[in-house]
Amino acid sequence: MIKMKQMKRSCDYLMLSFEDAWRRIAAALAPLPPVRRRSALVSGLVLAEEIIARENMPSFVAASMDGYAVLSSDDSSERSITGEQDAGLKLDLAVTKGTAVRIMTGAPLPAGADAVIPFEETVEAAGVVRLLSAAEPGANVRPVGQDIAAGEIALPKGSVLGPAEIGLLAALGHSEVSVHPRPRVSIMVTGNELVAVDEIPKPGQIRDSNAPALFSAATACGFDAVALPHPIGDDACKLEQSLVEALAVSDMLVTSGGVSMGTLDLIKPLLAGLGEVLVGRVAIKPGKPLTFAMVQGKPVFGLPGFPVSSLVCFELFARPALRLLSGLRLLWRPCVEVRLAQTLRHDPDRTEFQRAIVETDPYGFTARSTGSQSSSRLKSLVGANALLILPVGMGDFPAGSRVMAFLINQPEALADLPLPIPVSIR
Amino acid sequence: MIKMKQMKRSCDYLMLSFEDAWRRIAAALAPLPPVRRRSALVSGLVLAEEIIARENMPSFVAASMDGYAVLSSDDSSERSITGEQDAGLKLDLAVTKGTAVRIMTGAPLPAGADAVIPFEETVEAAGVVRLLSAAEPGANVRPVGQDIAAGEIALPKGSVLGPAEIGLLAALGHSEVSVHPRPRVSIMVTGNELVAVDEIPKPGQIRDSNAPALFSAATACGFDAVALPHPIGDDACKLEQSLVEALAVSDMLVTSGGVSMGTLDLIKPLLAGLGEVLVGRVAIKPGKPLTFAMVQGKPVFGLPGFPVSSLVCFELFARPALRLLSGLRLLWRPCVEVRLAQTLRHDPDRTEFQRAIVETDPYGFTARSTGSQSSSRLKSLVGANALLILPVGMGDFPAGSRVMAFLINQPEALADLPLPIPVSIR
Repeated sequence: MIKMKQMKRSCDYLMLSFEDAWRRIAAALAPLPPVRRRSALVSGLVLAEEIIARENMPSFVAASMDGYAVLSSDDSSERSITGEQDAGLKLDLAVTKGTAVRIMTGAPLPAGADAVIPFEETVEAAGVVRLLSAAEPGANVRPVGQDIAAGEIALPKGSVLGPAEIGLLAALGHSEVSVHPRPRVSIMVTGNELVAVDEIPKPGQIRDSNAPALFSAATACGFDAVALPHPIGDDACKLEQSLVEALAVSDMLVTSGGVSMGTLDLIKPLLAGLGEVLVGRVAIKPGKPLTFAMVQGKPVFGLPGFPVSSLVCFELFARPALRLLSGLRLLWRPCVEVRLAQTLRHDPDRTEFQRAIVETDPYGFTARSTGSQSSSRLKSLVGANALLILPVGMGDFPAGSRVMAFLINQPEALADLPLPIPVSIR
Repeated sequence: MIKMKQMKRSCDYLMLSFEDAWRRIAAALAPLPPVRRRSALVSGLVLAEEIIARENMPSFVAASMDGYAVLSSDDSSERSITGEQDAGLKLDLAVTKGTAVRIMTGAPLPAGADAVIPFEETVEAAGVVRLLSAAEPGANVRPVGQDIAAGEIALPKGSVLGPAEIGLLAALGHSEVSVHPRPRVSIMVTGNELVAVDEIPKPGQIRDSNAPALFSAATACGFDAVALPHPIGDDACKLEQSLVEALAVSDMLVTSGGVSMGTLDLIKPLLAGLGEVLVGRVAIKPGKPLTFAMVQGKPVFGLPGFPVSSLVCFELFARPALRLLSGLRLLWRPCVEVRLAQTLRHDPDRTEFQRAIVETDPYGFTARSTGSQSSSRLKSLVGANALLILPVGMGDFPAGSRVMAFLINQPEALADLPLPIPVSIR
């Protein structure tokens, strides 16, 4: 059990700006060390090595359409069909003057042939094909190495492995690759007042909503999450034990609650005892008591306990941190300029992240508030697709002002087309 | 075994525009029937019922800061402390004239108290607290039902259940809800020429890249995917059996290969025998042979076999269809106008979806091509974050033209900020 006596109180920590808090966090973090993984299991991960093509793609001259393999120098319009080469094992066929081989897309070109005439430009009858168009050398044929040549860089280090990248690894025979692993985050909610969703709260108690909400936030961003089965009461021994156990099974820990000024706000002193608290207060709203510590080389974010504060801080701190651990270069959500549909009150003491619904219109993005921005009011986040950034040092924002916003979900009108594509070019 | 004799050939199917193809697909599909699910397991799903709050939030008058619960009408500046109410079970405490109760955020207000003075505005010594500011009635107190009132609509039907929505369900005690289930898609690649990634291709053979690529595409979009363990050869009996088995264990089936003009392109006639082919050809590039059928009430997309064609068609057809089955209203990726950095050749016969890298600059979005757009060249999709839409009926697009583009990944500059937030307002 760590000593609690000489510990700093919450208000003893320096109040940092959002940018300074992030400078400290970014300086403390690095991508997780690379591991070898089956290529089938690396979707969304970041490649930790350069992939050089070990062979040509295609490795043989192949038909790129269904039709007839011919000799382009042969100027006869009718040729006798000597066989059929389907995609698959190469048969012992050859094309000579006056002959043709029926061939399918992807099939290896028979010896002698140098062009494919598509079925649509031919008439076949009684073993003879009549060509309705002339054969250009190389027509509808994929030469060796056309798509990628042996020795070429197929994927640079740092590539995000999406569907096309994973297809390319498979095509080139890389069944295993070196990647930064997907970080696993433990979620630990604290508070004597919390009961699980199935329990009936007694007077003074409330149901825990942070564990399921944070679990959803972590998994929706593509990370592995482990939620501790029950809220942890405000007892220093139990909290310390849970912190240590949760960190042991994960790459990062997120707690909620216990970081403010109360007598039972034990997270900051516990983290200070176990490791180093690098961020203890941030001039943001919601999220002033946001805490960041490194414990046993692993990051811990102490999120405030109010439901909105914990989710907004997850979005602003935990998500980018998990992306950094993943080796991703893009840490942040799309950030765009929006026009305010209404006046927003703002306290210049802190940078505020107001929840809003952003829609597109012919003039760009327009934002309207989700209503009361109380940190306990989850409805301020329900249906929200943006966090408006109202910077420290500025007062109220009149309707029509322009502010920057993180898009946390796709604005409706950006894709809500009556038909999938607008056919006219503007 | 179905009869293959009288079946239509690929070229017998009407060539549809992309819009007409989608009209037929959308008319054939509906969200999957609702099921009851544990609220902890519904992240990303669509709510199939309206959720009415059964109780007030908060259900008791609660402190919203750490401090002292007081009577605001009491004008004395010093009060004796009669106890401490932490967040958790309500104690039998009361506040009267001249007294105060130490109270923590989230704790129930003791009887008599109507305001909380934060610690920061007080000095406590020897059991007495001196208030440095006056107490306004209701200050730092959350009245019953402030966040949500009993009887209010908490979540409308059709809500997408993100972290905040899941938190709200938990807070209100809804441990189970009615949702549209997450669709499960089977992936079946076909072709005699295919071997698995670990095998050494013989002459004429290639490694299958479509199964891992399509699996990654489906799971990256948040759907459950089942990939058939091996590529299926071009044998009508085996293909039919695999089609039927794959459909039985999933809500939708995606095949790749076997939809073109070749003698072994068996997918269209097999689907026509098992159900109804509603789309047999589409005037798009890549993807002309794209096939859509309804079989046993379930959608089947026959994607072309070329790696790029299959992934682009997954993006344009399978992904929006899976979103429609999920009950989502937004089917499409963000669609924005982009400026072309270079001239693009375009055949006016078809709507073309060219792979590109879109970056933001002070003038908006600028797109540059990923190079050769051959349907076999996976590198045209590697690193791409957009599909440029070059509509049917229009010829080449000179550099500087503006076209619409689907953003299939976040443009780099949209979030590649040196610091997380731009602090100045433009």
